[in-house]
Amino acid sequence: MKSIKVGLLGFGTIGTGVVRIFQQNAGLLEERLGARLELARIADLDIVRDRGVSIPSEILTTSAEAVLDDPDIDLVIELIGGYEPARTFVLRAIANGKHVVTANKALLALHGDEIFAAAARKGVDIFFEGAVAGGIPVIAAIKENLCANNFRSILGILNGTCNYILSRMTNDGADFSEVLRDAQANGYAEADPTFDIEGIDTAHKLAILIALSFGARVKFDHIHTEGISDISALDIQFAGQFGYKIKLLAISKMSDGQIEARVHPTMIPLNYPLADVDGVFNAVRLLGDFVGPVMLYGRGAGMDPTASAIMGDVMAIARNLLTSSAGRTPAMAYRPEAIRDLPIKAMDEIVTQYYLRFAALDKPGVLAKIAGILGRHDISINSMIQPERQVGGAVPIVLMTHEAREANIRKALQEIDALPEICDRSRFIRLESGLL
Amino acid sequence: MKSIKVGLLGFGTIGTGVVRIFQQNAGLLEERLGARLELARIADLDIVRDRGVSIPSEILTTSAEAVLDDPDIDLVIELIGGYEPARTFVLRAIANGKHVVTANKALLALHGDEIFAAAARKGVDIFFEGAVAGGIPVIAAIKENLCANNFRSILGILNGTCNYILSRMTNDGADFSEVLRDAQANGYAEADPTFDIEGIDTAHKLAILIALSFGARVKFDHIHTEGISDISALDIQFAGQFGYKIKLLAISKMSDGQIEARVHPTMIPLNYPLADVDGVFNAVRLLGDFVGPVMLYGRGAGMDPTASAIMGDVMAIARNLLTSSAGRTPAMAYRPEAIRDLPIKAMDEIVTQYYLRFAALDKPGVLAKIAGILGRHDISINSMIQPERQVGGAVPIVLMTHEAREANIRKALQEIDALPEICDRSRFIRLESGLL
Repeated sequence: MKSIKVGLLGFGTIGTGVVRIFQQNAGLLEERLGARLELARIADLDIVRDRGVSIPSEILTTSAEAVLDDPDIDLVIELIGGYEPARTFVLRAIANGKHVVTANKALLALHGDEIFAAAARKGVDIFFEGAVAGGIPVIAAIKENLCANNFRSILGILNGTCNYILSRMTNDGADFSEVLRDAQANGYAEADPTFDIEGIDTAHKLAILIALSFGARVKFDHIHTEGISDISALDIQFAGQFGYKIKLLAISKMSDGQIEARVHPTMIPLNYPLADVDGVFNAVRLLGDFVGPVMLYGRGAGMDPTASAIMGDVMAIARNLLTSSAGRTPAMAYRPEAIRDLPIKAMDEIVTQYYLRFAALDKPGVLAKIAGILGRHDISINSMIQPERQVGGAVPIVLMTHEAREANIRKALQEIDALPEICDRSRFIRLESGLL
Repeated sequence: MKSIKVGLLGFGTIGTGVVRIFQQNAGLLEERLGARLELARIADLDIVRDRGVSIPSEILTTSAEAVLDDPDIDLVIELIGGYEPARTFVLRAIANGKHVVTANKALLALHGDEIFAAAARKGVDIFFEGAVAGGIPVIAAIKENLCANNFRSILGILNGTCNYILSRMTNDGADFSEVLRDAQANGYAEADPTFDIEGIDTAHKLAILIALSFGARVKFDHIHTEGISDISALDIQFAGQFGYKIKLLAISKMSDGQIEARVHPTMIPLNYPLADVDGVFNAVRLLGDFVGPVMLYGRGAGMDPTASAIMGDVMAIARNLLTSSAGRTPAMAYRPEAIRDLPIKAMDEIVTQYYLRFAALDKPGVLAKIAGILGRHDISINSMIQPERQVGGAVPIVLMTHEAREANIRKALQEIDALPEICDRSRFIRLESGLL
């Protein structure tokens, strides 16, 4: 029986999961593949720590080069994370003719063009299912079975940390900072949670999904990105009163050759497809011109689910190796020459519904002033809540608008915030309710 | 640019969807594939009817052989349905060295062994994503990206007709026969709906999913199969009072080398993963040992979604053709020699919770008699509803049990039905509430 030799860079949490699949499911992998997968070498700076898996010591090395330059190794799994030295290592693996599996969304979102071009030149495969939505096979679905569809839109809950925090805030009525501390204590959030809670991780993942779905080169920093740190228990409570939940959504829509691409807290109706995705779960809803809506749901992070995605990629590359069919499917789902630069619609041109919250002194005429300014900016009110109780001396006035242009919303809020009766910065949260 | 020639057998609804993708998305398919897909020949007994798509007349033929024996055709799509002549045509395509795409679950569930063996001998690919859950890429997910998992269980809503009928009965409080008539009038149910409403179509699909997930040969007629024609508006109403919905579920669980495989109306809690899958939508929940739970959701039938799945398969075979890698992934997900015969657990040995409904005369002591018989068969009661109102002279007594053995339930109901106070056959519906 043929044997395929795999090298692993990075023996952290996900790497340990990969080792466990190699060990526990070796027989299964052989039965499905018809060949042996051998974990030949593992490189990590720490080769002493006990990860709860038993590894022959001659397999472990502190030298990445011992993996990257080993002529026997067919395939390298990169699980170091971050930009460097991951980028250098991946490029070196490619230069040495090795196929690559990575789960590094940050690397791909920023250096994808360089890495995919190098892989195409060298004729090696690069697979990255674990980079988006953990164990959910969304990348394979877009590249393979759904590939006869023109995609119309992508909606995703792609960050388990944010979704856990928002779910806890919703269920417990707790404040953001309190839940974040809890999440950090329980290992659901990093010590420095910026990447997650500011939406950057979600934007990395959305950039990858957009490229695969639309055949478009998207600069990651062109994706409008807002995190959840500004969401208050009050907004979640009002959302509930309107029949909505707040989720951090990755949103992309294709229309008239223009892409919408944005990551921000979003109010969605309780019966909306992604509304029930709670806690650390992820979900992606794709809309294709023939398949219609498809939703994929599962664990978006963690050792075992991510290891599942990575080993699915290892199996795909192994199948290509056994049939000499590297490059069978283009890494970015389209032939490189077909990938276009497509403009991302300016946020000012977005048209959607908005939740608006104003902190106003409880004086006669203030609502009339607010409504007047909104009306002059072509913003009409759909519904309103004006609670009795006072918050910090001010009354919260809460509105839902009909569809409005974002530029108009921003201008109106600027004018409203300049009113003498307004005590605090006005807030807005975008809605997503129609199913495209 | 290379060109791949495709022949189509069957120009019905799904066939028309396939033609529409060939025509509308030709550019997209080329950009993703790097080659041209050409629909070279279409065979159907009716080549006159207007399907709303324009086809050059020289492509149309009434002769299946004109497609099957054309040496230029690389790949045949079989969309005739049923057992014969579909079986003969597929075997002839294989014998002529053509790759095959089919959406014929009945054919595969009954003649899969013969067809897959013939394809393996000849070294041609056979793909069948459209056979299960329409546009949802569940077969590709099991065979490809999730293939490093030992699957633990499969739960599916796999028949749009049944799900539409049950959803309407639930939402409108309507009776089965009334909703069925409506569904037939609206094209959601066939004139002869037996295959759908008696669960046979669902069992065909479950047989395929079991084989792919567990590497097991499953005789389709060993799958215990009950349909929905016996479900009454009354049971749906009581289910709601307990906080449950009734769905026709395909259920399979693997434990201790034994498979549970069954299709029947099932009560599930309102917050259960599949409870929100309504109308003609389908969903499959897979549990893998590493990925955990994964749910895939989308349109389970219809022209466009099924055509999407079929063209995804056509693209996969085209990629294999372009890289000479036919047989890259085994048709049934496991190398043929690894596929086992695994026993299906007898229904008598199933252990689950049950909903029981008795029609009893309103006499003192009847409940004590029922409870006594249940107790003697080791069945304990979890909760009970005894409504005031009378139905047909009898009072419905409705119970939920704790976990019990099916053999005991059957024996107990037999004894209870023999009581003089019982006016009608007692009903039971199995529950599914725990997440494996």
